[in-house]
Amino acid sequence: MDYAKESLRLHAQWQGKLDIQPKMQITNRDDLSLTYTPGVAAPCLEIQKDPQKSYTLTGRGNTVAVITDGTAVLGLGDIGPEAGMPVMEGKCVLFKEFGGVNAIPLCIRSKDTEEIVNTIALLAGSFGGINLEDIAAPRCFEIEKRLKEVCDIPVFHDDQHGTAIVVASALLNALKVVNKPMGSVRIVINGAGSAGCAIAKLLLDMHFGEVLLVDKAGILNIHSALTSGQQRILAITKCERQGTLADAMKDADVFIGVSAPHIVSQEMVRSMKAGAVVFPMANPIPEIMPDEALAAGAAVVGTGRSDFPNQINNVLAFPGIFKGALAVQASDINEEMKIAAAYGIASLIQEEELNKEYIIPSALDKRVADAVAEAVMQAARESGVARK
Amino acid sequence: MDYAKESLRLHAQWQGKLDIQPKMQITNRDDLSLTYTPGVAAPCLEIQKDPQKSYTLTGRGNTVAVITDGTAVLGLGDIGPEAGMPVMEGKCVLFKEFGGVNAIPLCIRSKDTEEIVNTIALLAGSFGGINLEDIAAPRCFEIEKRLKEVCDIPVFHDDQHGTAIVVASALLNALKVVNKPMGSVRIVINGAGSAGCAIAKLLLDMHFGEVLLVDKAGILNIHSALTSGQQRILAITKCERQGTLADAMKDADVFIGVSAPHIVSQEMVRSMKAGAVVFPMANPIPEIMPDEALAAGAAVVGTGRSDFPNQINNVLAFPGIFKGALAVQASDINEEMKIAAAYGIASLIQEEELNKEYIIPSALDKRVADAVAEAVMQAARESGVARK
Repeated sequence: MDYAKESLRLHAQWQGKLDIQPKMQITNRDDLSLTYTPGVAAPCLEIQKDPQKSYTLTGRGNTVAVITDGTAVLGLGDIGPEAGMPVMEGKCVLFKEFGGVNAIPLCIRSKDTEEIVNTIALLAGSFGGINLEDIAAPRCFEIEKRLKEVCDIPVFHDDQHGTAIVVASALLNALKVVNKPMGSVRIVINGAGSAGCAIAKLLLDMHFGEVLLVDKAGILNIHSALTSGQQRILAITKCERQGTLADAMKDADVFIGVSAPHIVSQEMVRSMKAGAVVFPMANPIPEIMPDEALAAGAAVVGTGRSDFPNQINNVLAFPGIFKGALAVQASDINEEMKIAAAYGIASLIQEEELNKEYIIPSALDKRVADAVAEAVMQAARESGVARK
Repeated sequence: MDYAKESLRLHAQWQGKLDIQPKMQITNRDDLSLTYTPGVAAPCLEIQKDPQKSYTLTGRGNTVAVITDGTAVLGLGDIGPEAGMPVMEGKCVLFKEFGGVNAIPLCIRSKDTEEIVNTIALLAGSFGGINLEDIAAPRCFEIEKRLKEVCDIPVFHDDQHGTAIVVASALLNALKVVNKPMGSVRIVINGAGSAGCAIAKLLLDMHFGEVLLVDKAGILNIHSALTSGQQRILAITKCERQGTLADAMKDADVFIGVSAPHIVSQEMVRSMKAGAVVFPMANPIPEIMPDEALAAGAAVVGTGRSDFPNQINNVLAFPGIFKGALAVQASDINEEMKIAAAYGIASLIQEEELNKEYIIPSALDKRVADAVAEAVMQAARESGVARK
């Protein structure tokens, strides 16, 4: 199928992928008086007394905003706020289809960190959570950090943390397949932008072994010119190594690519340790094609694509994460909740089902969101951010 | 029925009055690829080339935002942004039920004009129109004025203009009942806040006769201390009269109240000209009860209440106005469109149906929105704000 052509045709037919439906009909005077004035004054006054009641007397308790500035949309780059909206709507579709969560797509006409932070922060009373999407680095780090400080609802930049969570869950299971303890592995992450840094941070927080962050200039070390996102990782790893991607991959156990097509050679894969796990996730064309990686000795391969086994897809994470966060009226999505989500996804595949072509559930597996939500709710409660 | 109690029970049961539903299901890999990645890149790129295509390739062409700061909610006053949300949701229900328009409720945690303007303006790429709601005067004037300047989509403060339009349509028909030409009547508007000023402005623009604006201090004249909203009216009327509400009503043809309960006496109504039209619209308790006004000689009475004849209710206007504005991708809702809406509502009652208890369609009459939309579309085209 020509996805581009057919998708364009469908989008022109849909004229928006979401429909907003009242939960009640308005057919007589009582309907109007109960849904609107004068009856609506009663829930208003209840919320005035206790704003937390907005979670149950309005839709806030099951509503997230999916917000972009349109500066890093898919692989298309800075295409503008309005042009990012088909992706935001698509994400909202997935929120509902997989998590049962109402999601509202919004775009912001600004590239100014302060303006974006203020705009979102001032709207926070309208939602139970905020999913940031397709915002260019390094602005995305500062925007998320500032919003987490000023908002009393969870703020989650999915391009960073959703990706990191699903990679972590795939890696948990891949290491079971190759029978390596997670604390012993050396992991190379190529691509040190928002996704790469978020993956590194989460894997370190989960106590995977050594993590080497690599970008176009080679292995990032404490002497490199670093972005703030990279600094956070190097402050943990204190890496002093120098070298190229090829140097980094020599004797590594795991390769994770969030970079560019075709930049990993079979030679590089051959130089890895036996039982190598290779996740070339550049989209749509991976760092190395799965068949090439397997031919070069990789034991487990996962990509971002749906036409190969082991698709590492954010849709496994965000619907359940927000479903769980909303269910307990969480004030934050913290590291504990992200880690719980990663284990929650991984746990859906039983030991006896696990094999090198099945380390992660299908993106269409509708059991996933509930499993993730359960894990996230428990972690939220245990880490003290649940308000219900 | 105890509306307050029953409404509270229903709101706790609904947990939000709106549901966001995808227009498609996601059951296989193709669904995912067409709705989301990689297919979604195609509509994104089309909109990048021509942002106006966001009206047809996303939901923007049938979506409005209903936005408040929570400072003037119903008659409850400044109850806070979250506490205003049950009203915003209710309004969104009516947008869909009556106009078929998708509406998104939003609240802003600010009372600062600049902040509110910036927040809304930066979101304008997400919607086809903005309905401002329950924002306190005089801030609401400045916010709307500034937003109309900076936004390329219609901005409409319903508490002002929705009310004005429905009053105007009721008055058009009431004057037919009492057989008075619109250009000859003297109209007293009591209450010179946002609604009162908007009514005065629209009636003057429609070339009704003399308009006297009255507030607690009496008749407003060119020597009074005026708000900016009042100044706009006095600049037109150049009123030099002084006096009380009672003075104003003497020999008047029309009384319109957007003020407070029980401040009009039967004596005042008796002092009006024969064939007096009396619209005491204070809610829930009018300036004078309908039976008292009728007993004092009023020929036609309309209120804001659903339990008396001639309910003057904004729901007759806003769904059709936005439906029409969206249908032509209007850049503004201008005076011509408001006037067309007023005539559109009035025209739904045939001459032979018209009587003193039926000057305006029922708030539940689902023919109204289409009639209004048609009239608004035509006016938008003729006045040059239609972009389609």
